[in-house]
Amino acid sequence: MATFVMETLGCDVGAINTVQFSNHTGYRQVKGRRTPAPEIRELYEGLKQSYLTDFDVLLSGYAPSADVVEVVGQIARDLRYRATVKPGRFFWVLDPVMGDQGRLYVAEDIVPAYKQLIREADLVVPNQFEAELLSGVGISSLAGVANAVRSIHKTYGTSHVIVTSVRVPDAAATTSGDESTTPEALTVVGSSKTKDGSPRLFKIKVSQLDCFFSGTGDMFAGLLVARLREACAAMNLLDRASWMPDDDVQGVDLPLAKAVEKVLSSMQMVLEKTLVARDEEMRRFGQSPGASVGGVEGQGNDGNDSESKRRYLAETKAAEVRVVRNAKDLVHPEERYKAEPLEV
Amino acid sequence: MATFVMETLGCDVGAINTVQFSNHTGYRQVKGRRTPAPEIRELYEGLKQSYLTDFDVLLSGYAPSADVVEVVGQIARDLRYRATVKPGRFFWVLDPVMGDQGRLYVAEDIVPAYKQLIREADLVVPNQFEAELLSGVGISSLAGVANAVRSIHKTYGTSHVIVTSVRVPDAAATTSGDESTTPEALTVVGSSKTKDGSPRLFKIKVSQLDCFFSGTGDMFAGLLVARLREACAAMNLLDRASWMPDDDVQGVDLPLAKAVEKVLSSMQMVLEKTLVARDEEMRRFGQSPGASVGGVEGQGNDGNDSESKRRYLAETKAAEVRVVRNAKDLVHPEERYKAEPLEV
Repeated sequence: MATFVMETLGCDVGAINTVQFSNHTGYRQVKGRRTPAPEIRELYEGLKQSYLTDFDVLLSGYAPSADVVEVVGQIARDLRYRATVKPGRFFWVLDPVMGDQGRLYVAEDIVPAYKQLIREADLVVPNQFEAELLSGVGISSLAGVANAVRSIHKTYGTSHVIVTSVRVPDAAATTSGDESTTPEALTVVGSSKTKDGSPRLFKIKVSQLDCFFSGTGDMFAGLLVARLREACAAMNLLDRASWMPDDDVQGVDLPLAKAVEKVLSSMQMVLEKTLVARDEEMRRFGQSPGASVGGVEGQGNDGNDSESKRRYLAETKAAEVRVVRNAKDLVHPEERYKAEPLEV
Repeated sequence: MATFVMETLGCDVGAINTVQFSNHTGYRQVKGRRTPAPEIRELYEGLKQSYLTDFDVLLSGYAPSADVVEVVGQIARDLRYRATVKPGRFFWVLDPVMGDQGRLYVAEDIVPAYKQLIREADLVVPNQFEAELLSGVGISSLAGVANAVRSIHKTYGTSHVIVTSVRVPDAAATTSGDESTTPEALTVVGSSKTKDGSPRLFKIKVSQLDCFFSGTGDMFAGLLVARLREACAAMNLLDRASWMPDDDVQGVDLPLAKAVEKVLSSMQMVLEKTLVARDEEMRRFGQSPGASVGGVEGQGNDGNDSESKRRYLAETKAAEVRVVRNAKDLVHPEERYKAEPLEV
């Protein structure tokens, strides 16, 4: 997902796969292999020995073990070192993939491993739960999010923070009235710190679609890499360390805010189309003889699965994000969102 | 390369990586890992257990061992079985990657392994050397190519054959006069067999660009998957076994010919831009202080390489096909080529 999205937006990507799985884990069953840390190190050594490490940006995502997290840190340090004399020539976006909605889905020793790295990244993009883990601040309101972001800036010194999916009771109340009928809302909160380490907060509220999508975290991160670089280029910031704008730039005017506006528009456009396609696919599933999956006979594992399992697998497949055929929505998003100040 | 190209043309791709390498082997040094055959089998089992094998097309490319070739055959057979009651619902494009220009670059036992599979594929896309290996016919003229194609149709029963890069002395002479100043030419020869197994040949001549590009075989195959399906859809052939047109369709009118015309146009457009970018990159390399690679200091493996090795690596990197930023040439090729009859 991340590779496709970045390539579609014109980035030349050198991808190191940290897993090779048959499918995403939302299917609740998966075959394949996690890449061991030494292999990741060796692939990087291979790039180095042929002078192929002139990357402008590192995006790091899911790591299957604490060892892999550590190797990612070593790679990032090496890339950073290469760019010492040219600040801004290296930028690290770190997605600290640990869990969601109160549940850790990685090994426990990955949490302290990430805490070691956060201070070296330029931008971290935790979800609400991961922001709690990193900051130690419980989040039950937008004020809580703001405190968590403040804490990440202060504790780790990280220049830019985005909390990617905030679900809190007061988020609906703080928005302008026209969207008040939306039952569920997600808020994205971002900030670039000032020289004294204070946050410059902004928020963007999006309506939450009634579906569990897989891969949206990678979609967000991949889009963000391209859009943030574009926004920073437009403000002539690419030669600065961490592409940091001057202190007088307000939260809603940050390149980070401009980037997130576009990222969320692209995502909502693709996800809305995914919902339509999902419903159509499930209608066909329901009508197929014996509700064989996707209406295709002779497929799958010999019909030993229960009806409910087959339905679950079909629903999961039907909800696969339709990103390939809607690539134009990545390239040309509508202007749907405008960052708002987050006052707490 | 193949995945990006197919996705850009709107195909939802489920890719099984047969290697994870740091770089392509044109650099003459590489780190990484070949995927063992049992892992490939297991990934396919993973897809199957979640009912994720409803593929319309299989494109198989580089296989790192004869065992992997065999597993690819098993996967293809399983996909074919699933589509028994619906002919045309499965189509296998097999790129028998074995070598080039007289040199085998895979293990010797891969050759007989491929010979076992060719009869099951719908379309095979060997280069000149691979066509010689498969057919047993030496190719030193266009008549030789025609004989090799005829032999592959007859020996293996394969419906469609494309010999992707023919370099023979008489190719220049047989073309229309306006291109006679081109010193080097590549000819692509294709054919779909008739019911009695005879070839319907066509050829397209393209000027050979003065550069060794890596990945062009995968680029050709990926583009072909999308364009052939499109051409067969336009002729209402997708419900037929092997998408086979009626016997009265001539070689130059085959969907295969229509597809190759577009594929080659896209490729030449991208490769011409790659050449321009390569020359620009090498100009910068030549001007950089001490000709450090790409003008970037502090990069690579500690400066222990000889000047000639660094230049070779830089030239190889400079020739990387610029496909990501020229994706529009994949989607909207100019009409540059027209298939011609191959009379021998």
